[in-house]
Amino acid sequence: MELLSTNVCFDGEHRRYRHTSATLQCAMEFAVFLPPAVLGTNGKPVPVLYWLSGLTCTDQNFMQKAGAQKLAARLGLAIVCPDTSPRGLNLPGEDDSYDFGSGAGFYVNATEQPWAPHYRMYDYVVKELPQLVESELPLSGERAVSGHSMGGHGALICALKNPGFYKSVSAFAPIANPMACPWGQKAFTGYLGSDQGRWEEWDATRLIPGAEERLPLLIDQGTADEFLEQQLNPEALADACEKHQHHINLRMHRGYDHSYFFIASFIDDHLNHHARALGLVA
Amino acid sequence: MELLSTNVCFDGEHRRYRHTSATLQCAMEFAVFLPPAVLGTNGKPVPVLYWLSGLTCTDQNFMQKAGAQKLAARLGLAIVCPDTSPRGLNLPGEDDSYDFGSGAGFYVNATEQPWAPHYRMYDYVVKELPQLVESELPLSGERAVSGHSMGGHGALICALKNPGFYKSVSAFAPIANPMACPWGQKAFTGYLGSDQGRWEEWDATRLIPGAEERLPLLIDQGTADEFLEQQLNPEALADACEKHQHHINLRMHRGYDHSYFFIASFIDDHLNHHARALGLVA
Repeated sequence: MELLSTNVCFDGEHRRYRHTSATLQCAMEFAVFLPPAVLGTNGKPVPVLYWLSGLTCTDQNFMQKAGAQKLAARLGLAIVCPDTSPRGLNLPGEDDSYDFGSGAGFYVNATEQPWAPHYRMYDYVVKELPQLVESELPLSGERAVSGHSMGGHGALICALKNPGFYKSVSAFAPIANPMACPWGQKAFTGYLGSDQGRWEEWDATRLIPGAEERLPLLIDQGTADEFLEQQLNPEALADACEKHQHHINLRMHRGYDHSYFFIASFIDDHLNHHARALGLVA
Repeated sequence: MELLSTNVCFDGEHRRYRHTSATLQCAMEFAVFLPPAVLGTNGKPVPVLYWLSGLTCTDQNFMQKAGAQKLAARLGLAIVCPDTSPRGLNLPGEDDSYDFGSGAGFYVNATEQPWAPHYRMYDYVVKELPQLVESELPLSGERAVSGHSMGGHGALICALKNPGFYKSVSAFAPIANPMACPWGQKAFTGYLGSDQGRWEEWDATRLIPGAEERLPLLIDQGTADEFLEQQLNPEALADACEKHQHHINLRMHRGYDHSYFFIASFIDDHLNHHARALGLVA
């Protein structure tokens, strides 16, 4: 893993790296925030929050716009932001739309051609990337996961499919029931094929009934989110949670939209949620 | 003034506007953050911080990357961010370089052709824009000014040339002595002509000896700033302040660079500095 840049930030470090991903068979870039507690000669390993971004994002949107570093620095929490898809593969149609292909990996393992050999973002974010950063950087191996929109969907399925792997999970405006919305249907058809039976293991709402671990779900959603009605459907997830006694805290915030102005407004609540689960605060 | 968009943010509002500037003779966009204290039926006018951005920026960089809204919301402080130049005028060479023309107005009133009729960013930010927003928005008329790099230079000269107009001033990594650096020399030659006698009124370091009002200068500068040695020269300003008993608090931050990661790390100190001068906190 090659260090591309470092910016000191709240006495910690924002770093960007490039590496060759065996899972995705291409070069990938990602960003890391390391709190001051890990730096210097007395530095100690810290827990890490994996942040999964939404459609069109790179590793940089969250790091530049969410304003998470101030509290993360104080808590002693690292943050790792992967990119949202493989890039630059010259696959047919790869760059044709904002909601499929580049910038839109949807955190699944594709089975359809030509995507299958590369679009394996699920394996990348739950296996290869944690193995890499947790061996190369001063991280303790305690993990949390969160994300926004497509990345909120990603965070939920990563947690629900890997009991014990993450200590906590949260999401901002997640695509909560992708099988039932246009974004999800387009992505799942393209990456997974038209057999909807094979979609269910990638849909948070469908995973709730069989979830082995009842990790509490903290979900923030703006009522003025332009994608709420057609794409996000947090009520479907909340209904499944209620039916199956899975704890969910779905907070509806009046007037907030889908932007990073919304995320910035509530990111500290999420960081504190994860910090409690990770034992960083009482 | 036409409202382009609104995002709720920390229970306040981030708004973007467009208007036709009589000073610049073109359409201009700007951004405003209004804290929750001004909204709703019990809203009251609040003081405003004018933020002047650096080279290549629009009205959006600060609003998206500085993380200022959280504390501004709590303090009850509005923020207004203008663009950094006129745009889209089709003047010869307007878009040829990042440090002259579009995105690089340098907060002066140009006297040279073809820039003179439009590149009057000084009059725009100290006259037209305050008159506009303070009559159209719930602002109290109490003002502070700050900025970054080219905008730090802008903040300093706006405050030094207008005693009593701003209650406080601060800057991040300002171009503190533009007559003595390549960025400033290029801009001043282009906008003001080659007679250096006419540059002096636009150079903060040169304005210190004759400053009528000794407004304390809070200046933050990173020691790893890639532009520190060649372009910024805060020591020249500090020397002038020392010689002329003008209070300056020049804070050198080890390891910090020129980016918004640096600004975000210390913006709250600046907001508190302005809030004290504006009577928002004790």
